[in-house]
Amino acid sequence: MRTFDEYRQITEEALIPMLSSLGNIPSPLFDAMSYSLKAGGKRIRPCLLLAACEMAGGKLDEALPFACALEMIHTYSLIHDDLPAMDNDDLRRGRPTNHKVFGENLAILAGDGLLNAAAELMAGAALKTGSIRAVRAMESIMRHAGVTGMIAGQTADVTGEGKTPGEEEVRYIHLHKTADLLEASMEAGLALAGAGDEQIEAGRAYAMHLGLAFQMTDDLLDVTGNVDAMGKSTGKDSEQNKMTWVALKGIEGTEKDAGREVETAIGALRTLPWNTAFFERFAESLPGRDK
Amino acid sequence: MRTFDEYRQITEEALIPMLSSLGNIPSPLFDAMSYSLKAGGKRIRPCLLLAACEMAGGKLDEALPFACALEMIHTYSLIHDDLPAMDNDDLRRGRPTNHKVFGENLAILAGDGLLNAAAELMAGAALKTGSIRAVRAMESIMRHAGVTGMIAGQTADVTGEGKTPGEEEVRYIHLHKTADLLEASMEAGLALAGAGDEQIEAGRAYAMHLGLAFQMTDDLLDVTGNVDAMGKSTGKDSEQNKMTWVALKGIEGTEKDAGREVETAIGALRTLPWNTAFFERFAESLPGRDK
Repeated sequence: MRTFDEYRQITEEALIPMLSSLGNIPSPLFDAMSYSLKAGGKRIRPCLLLAACEMAGGKLDEALPFACALEMIHTYSLIHDDLPAMDNDDLRRGRPTNHKVFGENLAILAGDGLLNAAAELMAGAALKTGSIRAVRAMESIMRHAGVTGMIAGQTADVTGEGKTPGEEEVRYIHLHKTADLLEASMEAGLALAGAGDEQIEAGRAYAMHLGLAFQMTDDLLDVTGNVDAMGKSTGKDSEQNKMTWVALKGIEGTEKDAGREVETAIGALRTLPWNTAFFERFAESLPGRDK
Repeated sequence: MRTFDEYRQITEEALIPMLSSLGNIPSPLFDAMSYSLKAGGKRIRPCLLLAACEMAGGKLDEALPFACALEMIHTYSLIHDDLPAMDNDDLRRGRPTNHKVFGENLAILAGDGLLNAAAELMAGAALKTGSIRAVRAMESIMRHAGVTGMIAGQTADVTGEGKTPGEEEVRYIHLHKTADLLEASMEAGLALAGAGDEQIEAGRAYAMHLGLAFQMTDDLLDVTGNVDAMGKSTGKDSEQNKMTWVALKGIEGTEKDAGREVETAIGALRTLPWNTAFFERFAESLPGRDK
């Protein structure tokens, strides 16, 4: 197994070439798409996908288009989330947000373009290999990213602003806005390696609890972090009356819940027949991370 | 072969059930997506896809998810095009545009949702049948809809506003913004039926010339039509200094060019071993259509 940093490096080097491999993209669109793709972040989703695939005996080369597709989907969701009509954010990872640099119209198109590019990359990879594993990975990613997954979470987040947060709503938002793409990482990585249904389900459960812990930590950082460490505006969630775990359970309660989710995530790995140390270590490293 | 109206009826009846088949979509998102999906239009793209598939001996049932996916992609592009940051349109097909009814944030999410739903539907269909034909159809649709296709055309349209239109730019916009999804209709329909590469290419050429004629007619209607016949605001293109064929060649010149493109489109069908009357008739019926 490689380290997280190695997977991250592999992802960083592949993202722009994968985009360019689609053909002749007009320059303002390509520039807007690459600006956000290159803006960094931990590349958690592609790294989990690549690691899950290699852990289960799959090939890195075959997983790479899917890893990049997942990061493109994550990136498009950030571009659209930051728009004035949505969260209206000026800063993301310490840099001006996409629409601040390219204008709202190109930011909308760049987001659309990244979502479409993700599906196009995966369909192209599936066509090339003719493998049903690739189709299964693609289906899993599009489903978790979609209107019963990430977009459903984003909708609940947007339409719930200003309301008094209930535990069920907060959980729904976290499960879909955050956990769904992590579930896709594990499912797709394992599917590409030809893992069985029960193994894929164990990977999904790990990712789901990881995602809950992940979002709880993010909510904590929004309250306790500072703009330098976060690379984005802090305190925005409470300003906008966003439904967060901290608003519901307080700082200590959220820390406790996050710790419990990490334990449950690691517990879900136990049935897997492979060396799961990479994923245990990753879950344990969560607090203090940045996105 | 069925008639255009029969294919249209089949599409109309399938669109919302296909969307619902994806699972539990939160109601404000589902409402915003269905509002625009149900808003009518001729359903040209799905009808062409279904007709191409049946003409080449394929099965209607297997083509239906792809036809609906294509209409979802067309619909998302209209929702995002109408946004204040883009064309800022209040009316579409005689009804208030999506963001006028649901707000900008839900309109952005509904567009994202329809694009994602399209890919999810196709991936699900490909997984169910395990057929490489389905993967080929999906790849074709995502490619033509994407950053070298429809989104590239939309980018050129948006970034070119206010400039003096040149023939090359106008052609680029028409080829990508309009022709690309029609090419996808023919390619995907034929691919699903197992047609060969040369047959798929003949279908694509038909659709490309049809698309050029289609957009020329649309430009003409924007100048000569009225708001009742169009179901949308007229004169907007020239107000916004959009690059149109009419601005370049005048009304008569555009009519002549549109006629020539229809002839070329029909000519491209000649190598096909099937009864192509449906497609000839459709190309000839273009002038006077509404979208």
